[in-house]
Amino acid sequence: MNEAGITQLRSLINSRIGELYPEGPISLTKTIEYVLTAGGKRLRPLLTMISANSCGANFEKALPSALAVEILHNFTLVHDDIMDEDQTRHGKPTVHEKWDVGSAILTGDAMLSLALLILQEEETPRDLMTVFTKGLLRVCEGQAFDKEFETIKNISLDDYVNMVDLKTGHLLGLAGEMGAIIADADLPVRYGIRDYGRLIGRAFQVQDDLLEIYSNSDNMGKSLNSDILLGKKTYLMILAKNRIPVEIQSAIELCQEDINGGKKAIQELFIESGIVKSTKQFIMDNIEEANTMLTNLDIDCSDLLYFSDLITRRNN
Amino acid sequence: MNEAGITQLRSLINSRIGELYPEGPISLTKTIEYVLTAGGKRLRPLLTMISANSCGANFEKALPSALAVEILHNFTLVHDDIMDEDQTRHGKPTVHEKWDVGSAILTGDAMLSLALLILQEEETPRDLMTVFTKGLLRVCEGQAFDKEFETIKNISLDDYVNMVDLKTGHLLGLAGEMGAIIADADLPVRYGIRDYGRLIGRAFQVQDDLLEIYSNSDNMGKSLNSDILLGKKTYLMILAKNRIPVEIQSAIELCQEDINGGKKAIQELFIESGIVKSTKQFIMDNIEEANTMLTNLDIDCSDLLYFSDLITRRNN
Repeated sequence: MNEAGITQLRSLINSRIGELYPEGPISLTKTIEYVLTAGGKRLRPLLTMISANSCGANFEKALPSALAVEILHNFTLVHDDIMDEDQTRHGKPTVHEKWDVGSAILTGDAMLSLALLILQEEETPRDLMTVFTKGLLRVCEGQAFDKEFETIKNISLDDYVNMVDLKTGHLLGLAGEMGAIIADADLPVRYGIRDYGRLIGRAFQVQDDLLEIYSNSDNMGKSLNSDILLGKKTYLMILAKNRIPVEIQSAIELCQEDINGGKKAIQELFIESGIVKSTKQFIMDNIEEANTMLTNLDIDCSDLLYFSDLITRRNN
Repeated sequence: MNEAGITQLRSLINSRIGELYPEGPISLTKTIEYVLTAGGKRLRPLLTMISANSCGANFEKALPSALAVEILHNFTLVHDDIMDEDQTRHGKPTVHEKWDVGSAILTGDAMLSLALLILQEEETPRDLMTVFTKGLLRVCEGQAFDKEFETIKNISLDDYVNMVDLKTGHLLGLAGEMGAIIADADLPVRYGIRDYGRLIGRAFQVQDDLLEIYSNSDNMGKSLNSDILLGKKTYLMILAKNRIPVEIQSAIELCQEDINGGKKAIQELFIESGIVKSTKQFIMDNIEEANTMLTNLDIDCSDLLYFSDLITRRNN
């Protein structure tokens, strides 16, 4: 696998994902097309296809499942954006901003049923649907904990990582596992790739926490203001509440009056107190653990290791 | 089948439905329990169980599917109540009223995944999931049309009935069809019961339109005010726009200033102009067509005919 290979797989995904729902009420076809063609890194479907291929199936065979996984991911984004009051996504207005909350709820619901239909229509193993459905509940639970944590002052790092594993890890885990199922991989390989995906997902989410506070790009930092004001927990924020509780509280309070000044203070505090360094270490530790897991499996894992590199190198 | 039999089946459903999600984030377990134990007539799961039994399976065998159908129905209610801004359901505050919109969105999502998990966990035929998933998309489409119609002045009766078939008919159709699948019924029986359910669903929804405007009970009339103010279409309202366009427009405008006076005017107009009579006729025609469909099938349809009677006789 190389950059050109990834680009080719992305093109395959993008060429199919916009045509999945051509007929239906205009209020749904237009919102679903809007969401599914808005871009994004397509990391989850890439993982499904790379996983399947690493286990001996061709990329094309994994495409329906890959699309289902990407639609599931986008379903969660549409609904989460309502809950988190986020106004932009991929540099465009979110569905509830551009249309309204009702349309966004229904768009998500219909997208989920499209994803399920893709899995049903194919002559695919029954396990695919079970993994997908269990994953869906776990993702909902992760989002529920994330919301619960907003109003709880002291969240332990363990509780936070558990929430991340549910909300983000499970989705990357099922993306990898579904690829292995398609290739009819043995159970140790299947569960190995699932656990690899979960660890990568954990690293990915904590990377998000880090990128969001330091990135100036349009892609990241999109919801930082609302996150701080909503009291959203992040890996860095929890470390700060443990290490520098007084200082971080002042910086958060400053945000209420002066969002830019407060943000800058938070950025500086995170660096000075070594929180950024610890966070980067945590990300690398998880990616390394994920990679070690792969190398113990009886497959050629070079493409999956390339996928890990993609995650490691990302800056948006 | 008789009243005691129905009561017994309802008890079976109610005894199981509250225990389906005992462990998870408290913000989800409490809302899901709240929704699933709030009561309701349990008509859809009753249809699944009666359908299965009429095709030769025992009631118990159909219980998981019946529960999945009832949870799917409640998922649509939770999300629709947000979209329709309804404040009460079964005499209790709706989820988004009692908690908030985010909790209600997530509650619906998690309920849907519970329903899917029930269908996955059982050693059930693959067709069950296909029917369920297709039905889910149709229900979303029905709700999308319902919302679209709010802002369109002239909706034909055909368009309205098509929307009702998607939104309500498909769910009762799949409830019946899933029962037939569980009993491994022949395709003509399976599709016959599906079409029976769809016609019953159509009658049921138009009954709702009628009951909502004349009932004084807590159960019905719950959202009439918001329905009129949102410009929600009903079977009666569409007949009125055709038959007495000027008079009904005045009554609707009166509602803006004086909701009770306007409501009374609408009630009287519907009676005087024969709209109530035509609506009742439409309901009866559909129930009769549904029943005729049954009697042509190679099964003992007496319990399903009893189910039709339940619908015919209902007053809430």
